[in-house]
Amino acid sequence: MIAQSELRVRTDGRGTYDLSRDVENAVRDSGVTSGLCHVFVCHTSASLMLCENADPSVMRDMESFMSHQVPDGDPMFTHTAEGPDDMPAHVRSVLTGSDLNIPVRDGRCALGTWQGVYLWEHRYAPHSRRIIVTVQGD
Amino acid sequence: MIAQSELRVRTDGRGTYDLSRDVENAVRDSGVTSGLCHVFVCHTSASLMLCENADPSVMRDMESFMSHQVPDGDPMFTHTAEGPDDMPAHVRSVLTGSDLNIPVRDGRCALGTWQGVYLWEHRYAPHSRRIIVTVQGD
Amino acid sequence: MIAQSELRVRTDGRGTYDLSRDVENAVRDSGVTSGLCHVFVCHTSASLMLCENADPSVMRDMESFMSHQVPDGDPMFTHTAEGPDDMPAHVRSVLTGSDLNIPVRDGRCALGTWQGVYLWEHRYAPHSRRIIVTVQGD
Repeated sequence: MIAQSELRVRTDGRGTYDLSRDVENAVRDSGVTSGLCHVFVCHTSASLMLCENADPSVMRDMESFMSHQVPDGDPMFTHTAEGPDDMPAHVRSVLTGSDLNIPVRDGRCALGTWQGVYLWEHRYAPHSRRIIVTVQGD
Repeated sequence: MIAQSELRVRTDGRGTYDLSRDVENAVRDSGVTSGLCHVFVCHTSASLMLCENADPSVMRDMESFMSHQVPDGDPMFTHTAEGPDDMPAHVRSVLTGSDLNIPVRDGRCALGTWQGVYLWEHRYAPHSRRIIVTVQGD
Repeated sequence: MIAQSELRVRTDGRGTYDLSRDVENAVRDSGVTSGLCHVFVCHTSASLMLCENADPSVMRDMESFMSHQVPDGDPMFTHTAEGPDDMPAHVRSVLTGSDLNIPVRDGRCALGTWQGVYLWEHRYAPHSRRIIVTVQGD
């Protein structure tokens, strides 16, 4: 059994967006009881991650870390046509990844208690991001 | 065909733990001959990686790199309720990833000669870690 | 429906190699219309990434970033038997990842407009790299 659906997330620019409920809904709608749920972002300047979902300071610290690790406007970068956040957005996306696979058990995402699914927008400007969810199983 | 099972790994604190045999056993028990084996850690302060399995110095160097890259107790971090290794554990997990997919061929994981499957515990304290293995295929 | 195939990529040493067409061909040959395409590199010193496919400066900047982040010959590394690029190759592979899953829709990879599939060779010397492609779906 395979069910594929698409989400659209309108971001307000750089930051993280909790997709946990949307992904859970896609699993429920699929009717799959046991299998896997795959989440994929169709862009190279936004990424996906599983991260702690209880304390908002985790997301702020995650952003601090990444901003420090991959500085906007770093003179090492030559691909700067779209601004100082252009190339850092690509690097940040490669470091965090474009896809996630989550086990489905008893018709639900078998996430740990503190695991949430997040879209990470790496560009300053608001964007409309396409996300494809594929649920496979019995 | 889908087979889902759960592993429990009792860690002694920060370090890497070889799961290759456990994952291989899950594949064998599934009866799947051709397909994929998905491994997922249900936590945000431990991660999974495929890494060189022959020389123990690779794991030590991997830890040195990560400790240097994401320093414990970095004053940039505000999420420190559980100690200096709390937020670094989340960052390290996002950088390495929570899930892996391995091809199954002839009823076995089609890993390269030097590839091993590792759990990376990022917290200082011992933890009990849940890992879900899902094998899909024919 | 499951189709598994193997690619061989002969690299000229460190750099990125576009696999998008090979992966697309594997999907077409599989006959799968809706599902997932999994790409896996059987090595621990080469990795896979989805990245911007239009401007070659993105790949050069990606390499600049990684060379700066994980310096070859860093005295922190002890696993140096095969040279100054040995341990950095393992670290770079763990940071970027060994496998990718791409949605298949209408018999094609549902990549975004600017997403390409790349093999990243992290060693200086030319290597022959094995890549397993598994397409699952209806």
